[in-house]
Amino acid sequence: MRNSEKSKIVESEKVREVLSMRAVILMGSKVDLNFCREIADKLKIFGIESDLRIASAHKTPEHVLEILKSYEDEEVVFVTVAGRSNALSGFVDANTTKPVIASPPIGDKWIDLFSSIRMPSGVAPMLVLEAENVALAVAKIFAIREERIRNAVKEYQKRKKDEILKSDKEVG
Amino acid sequence: MRNSEKSKIVESEKVREVLSMRAVILMGSKVDLNFCREIADKLKIFGIESDLRIASAHKTPEHVLEILKSYEDEEVVFVTVAGRSNALSGFVDANTTKPVIASPPIGDKWIDLFSSIRMPSGVAPMLVLEAENVALAVAKIFAIREERIRNAVKEYQKRKKDEILKSDKEVG
Amino acid sequence: MRNSEKSKIVESEKVREVLSMRAVILMGSKVDLNFCREIADKLKIFGIESDLRIASAHKTPEHVLEILKSYEDEEVVFVTVAGRSNALSGFVDANTTKPVIASPPIGDKWIDLFSSIRMPSGVAPMLVLEAENVALAVAKIFAIREERIRNAVKEYQKRKKDEILKSDKEVG
Amino acid sequence: MRNSEKSKIVESEKVREVLSMRAVILMGSKVDLNFCREIADKLKIFGIESDLRIASAHKTPEHVLEILKSYEDEEVVFVTVAGRSNALSGFVDANTTKPVIASPPIGDKWIDLFSSIRMPSGVAPMLVLEAENVALAVAKIFAIREERIRNAVKEYQKRKKDEILKSDKEVG
Amino acid sequence: MRNSEKSKIVESEKVREVLSMRAVILMGSKVDLNFCREIADKLKIFGIESDLRIASAHKTPEHVLEILKSYEDEEVVFVTVAGRSNALSGFVDANTTKPVIASPPIGDKWIDLFSSIRMPSGVAPMLVLEAENVALAVAKIFAIREERIRNAVKEYQKRKKDEILKSDKEVG
Amino acid sequence: MRNSEKSKIVESEKVREVLSMRAVILMGSKVDLNFCREIADKLKIFGIESDLRIASAHKTPEHVLEILKSYEDEEVVFVTVAGRSNALSGFVDANTTKPVIASPPIGDKWIDLFSSIRMPSGVAPMLVLEAENVALAVAKIFAIREERIRNAVKEYQKRKKDEILKSDKEVG
Amino acid sequence: MRNSEKSKIVESEKVREVLSMRAVILMGSKVDLNFCREIADKLKIFGIESDLRIASAHKTPEHVLEILKSYEDEEVVFVTVAGRSNALSGFVDANTTKPVIASPPIGDKWIDLFSSIRMPSGVAPMLVLEAENVALAVAKIFAIREERIRNAVKEYQKRKKDEILKSDKEVG
Amino acid sequence: MRNSEKSKIVESEKVREVLSMRAVILMGSKVDLNFCREIADKLKIFGIESDLRIASAHKTPEHVLEILKSYEDEEVVFVTVAGRSNALSGFVDANTTKPVIASPPIGDKWIDLFSSIRMPSGVAPMLVLEAENVALAVAKIFAIREERIRNAVKEYQKRKKDEILKSDKEVG
Repeated sequence: MRNSEKSKIVESEKVREVLSMRAVILMGSKVDLNFCREIADKLKIFGIESDLRIASAHKTPEHVLEILKSYEDEEVVFVTVAGRSNALSGFVDANTTKPVIASPPIGDKWIDLFSSIRMPSGVAPMLVLEAENVALAVAKIFAIREERIRNAVKEYQKRKKDEILKSDKEVG
Repeated sequence: MRNSEKSKIVESEKVREVLSMRAVILMGSKVDLNFCREIADKLKIFGIESDLRIASAHKTPEHVLEILKSYEDEEVVFVTVAGRSNALSGFVDANTTKPVIASPPIGDKWIDLFSSIRMPSGVAPMLVLEAENVALAVAKIFAIREERIRNAVKEYQKRKKDEILKSDKEVG
Repeated sequence: MRNSEKSKIVESEKVREVLSMRAVILMGSKVDLNFCREIADKLKIFGIESDLRIASAHKTPEHVLEILKSYEDEEVVFVTVAGRSNALSGFVDANTTKPVIASPPIGDKWIDLFSSIRMPSGVAPMLVLEAENVALAVAKIFAIREERIRNAVKEYQKRKKDEILKSDKEVG
Repeated sequence: MRNSEKSKIVESEKVREVLSMRAVILMGSKVDLNFCREIADKLKIFGIESDLRIASAHKTPEHVLEILKSYEDEEVVFVTVAGRSNALSGFVDANTTKPVIASPPIGDKWIDLFSSIRMPSGVAPMLVLEAENVALAVAKIFAIREERIRNAVKEYQKRKKDEILKSDKEVG
Repeated sequence: MRNSEKSKIVESEKVREVLSMRAVILMGSKVDLNFCREIADKLKIFGIESDLRIASAHKTPEHVLEILKSYEDEEVVFVTVAGRSNALSGFVDANTTKPVIASPPIGDKWIDLFSSIRMPSGVAPMLVLEAENVALAVAKIFAIREERIRNAVKEYQKRKKDEILKSDKEVG
Repeated sequence: MRNSEKSKIVESEKVREVLSMRAVILMGSKVDLNFCREIADKLKIFGIESDLRIASAHKTPEHVLEILKSYEDEEVVFVTVAGRSNALSGFVDANTTKPVIASPPIGDKWIDLFSSIRMPSGVAPMLVLEAENVALAVAKIFAIREERIRNAVKEYQKRKKDEILKSDKEVG
Repeated sequence: MRNSEKSKIVESEKVREVLSMRAVILMGSKVDLNFCREIADKLKIFGIESDLRIASAHKTPEHVLEILKSYEDEEVVFVTVAGRSNALSGFVDANTTKPVIASPPIGDKWIDLFSSIRMPSGVAPMLVLEAENVALAVAKIFAIREERIRNAVKEYQKRKKDEILKSDKEVG
Repeated sequence: MRNSEKSKIVESEKVREVLSMRAVILMGSKVDLNFCREIADKLKIFGIESDLRIASAHKTPEHVLEILKSYEDEEVVFVTVAGRSNALSGFVDANTTKPVIASPPIGDKWIDLFSSIRMPSGVAPMLVLEAENVALAVAKIFAIREERIRNAVKEYQKRKKDEILKSDKEVG
């Protein structure tokens, strides 16, 4: 967690928990900032805050390791966003005990997909494509033990079902 | 959770938690039983128990829904294993608040991969290939709040690093 | 068949048959409505009526099952339209005795094709791409026993041949 | 229908119908004979007879056209089996009013798949892979109006479901 | 050769030869007319005339066979142009003793390529992409024995070389 | 033509023509010798002789150019056989007026195919896969003007048709 | 080296070295001139001069060989730029002792990639995509022994790292 | 350079240079040891020594950085060997001024290729496949200034040419 954020934390246990249970959206370059902001927006559907961070597994590996270390005592899920040859997701996953969701912004470049999933033994980032689905996956991880988020997931899933049922009535 | 298992549960809170925090490995047909047993074995590295279940999203969808319902109050992560066109992973994910890890046993059939990742909005299974990495991903999800598992992940990652450092010394 | 439609049916046997022998175009989301309407339009070439329905194998599986049940006594062919990972076609096929034609709107996304054809044993949707060809395939199924439709197919095929013969004369 | 077969037909209407409602499995060369015999075997599950025929769209097109003509008054579904560049399926489909199921024996040669599905307007063979699923698709087409076959499909689908439910009990 | 053309032929042997040594550009539908006209234009570089014909191997196979028969006594090379699943090239090749150059207008649709080259034994269309290269390949076939065309090929190849040598001087 | 061969030529015009009208099978390395010998064997079906030559466009380009020059006054068709990145076919085609048939021995390595067909403007080798089809394509080129070879092609095509018609009778 | 350039060389040893240590950017046609100029511009970041040359391995192989010969006594790295089937890179590499970097301008045409990397034994161009990375690779080769260029690489790498660290601060 | 090796270095300048100009073959795990030893063997053809090192960009990044640092004052070329998602090559390249040749042991797994070449700006490993060609590429880099190695490359290339010329004589 960043110092600037730590200063905002009130000392009640409740607040600490809410701030701790967050996503860290780590991108390899600022080129992917818009996509990462979209993930952060979608996480708000489930009441989950997030940090946006930029660091490159290729070019600033020590900085990535520092970032990982700074979150080791927090309850976080990492979301890694890197285009082209995605070294970031595996690099992050191998150097943290936290869950890592890889979400490469591949668009139609399917050939780039394989750098995100052909991991060696002991490296296990979890692939999810597109911002809203990434947010949902993060929410489900926290929802295991957190009733507030579990309810948000339930409501979200219900809305999705209702939309389809409503469409079916309209088209008939 | 299955009835046969419920009868085994002693009433202490401690035991309940340990049994509850488990993986449910759900396969589409018994063809994939060996691969699923390998996942279960690898989960033991991290001290995580698992249930093996067989149900088809295509052929026995109501049975899948019943299974999902029976685990809704447990602290579980689903691992879905289905070859060819993988309807199971998305189907499970859309009908539970629990995290779902899709691990299709695709081998060299990369063309089957896309059925596991091209999900519609609101459906977010997380792809991880190969048994040991699936087990590691499940462990990391539970490790967020469970110190026992977090330590198991740490030790596992340390062993992996040490193996490489040792190899480098031997080859020099 | 929908209640709203049932009310319109006059009690003569002739009318019943004509209404019964229809296509049910089932799409996974309203995103594909235009493509489905195009199929319905093309079916009119062969004098075949159709119902448009929206339901998701992932998100509203029970609703899909209800729809299938409501048509079980009708003489229908299902046309399933779902983009990305197509769970709908196999799901529908496994839960009805009716023929199912899968027509995923894949455009240039060939990687999505395989989710429509790599079916497990006992699940057999039939793949046809593009609206006009889907309509022709439906018509040929009904044409086996229905002379009216068989004649429509014959005329259609003759028109297609004549167009080519005419083109050849013009270009020479 | 072949002369040798016609002589076997007893004059009762019942027998005529049973013989008429059949599959014609047409292969491009005798290389695929084993695969076609497997389809014929699987059709027997549903009580459906079949003819095996060999003709090439490339090399003996007139012979293909003669075969198609000889079945035009029968209640048949064509199953076309041709490897490599599959001209046969589209050729057959364009020259008959009967439904055509294309089942290229592609194995792992996915690059051959596209010759079976990238059809021009007015040519609509329906793709189904693997012998058992081809047989099921044929059965469902006849099942629309034929109660005997519809019941066979129902029983087949029930057996498939029961197998999975049984597997789930055994693995638990 | 078409009747309309035959009437134009003066009876001298010289003219007969020139008209006979021609390309027949056969397309599956008039959609590809512009591409075929471009081939005809490029053939003029080498002093080779061409006929444009439209016929479909799928929909008008007898018409294709008639066209092939009408050219059997001419000195022609066939150029077959058909998009999507290219049945035309193999169909033409198997039914004529003349050389056949397949030139599918695939653009970026590489998946369509394989229907043009995965031929069964005894069917051997020769693949060349793009109009100018098709014209050059036709010219080289006639150039084996025809000095006039051989010289045209030589001059064409020399121009191509000179263009590159000139570019190198300009860029230096 | 090689000196050793020239010495064998009797001085009659007839013999000269027969020897001149030959295929030159040029391979990039001796690794492909067996495949090239198979082409030579299949050419004998059509009464066509062939020379086997080894030269590399990458490593011995001057030697390739010498070989091309030595055949410039003969009536030959070149068959180029080179695996991996096929520079040979385009190199040969750009430096001779003779027709060039590229037949890369790609087996299942489809990724190697594109080096044989993505030619720049002014370079037009013609792709044909597999030895027997290469031989047929060469024969058809010579058959345009050579009755002896045209008849051999006709007989060959007839045998192919008869085989299929015979198979159909046997399987019925 | 070109005559026009040789005349510019002052006779001091220092200048000779600087001019000698250069890149020769050799393109197959002037179509790729803009891309090659971009490489030349990026090389200036590292203080490296370059020559632009145009020659085709297919159409002007002797000219390519002359160019290679003229640089054999210089300290140069070749950069080869050829689209479609890239014969140039392997051709250049096999005929010079200098290092060759292949940089095909493939854009999204991944199928063209394989012609640049599937080299026979003894042919070893090194693939690098995109202009700036090509320039960096050339610079690193010269940097082994040239301190001036090594420092330029160090500064360049530092700027890249600083950009990322700065981005991370801004986004936080 | 390793301590164990430093102790062996005699103090003459000549020996220092020979030892310094070496390849460092860095593999991601000992699984690839045989392939790396083959590269080392092939380097001996050109009189080039090599070090074998094992380190993982994912699991032991600090160890990779230490290795890179230890060679920063040597005249070395790095050869990086990592299967699956190749993070190692880009990681090494971004953290050294030395040239890096990426040689992933992909075999037929072409989908793994893209992780080795889709590099971000400022990261430029050079791809060469197969051991002998990697050795040749390393040799050519050193050959720019080192006459001994340049001569070894010349002799090697001459042997390759002679082999082909000899084959051509034998096959004729």
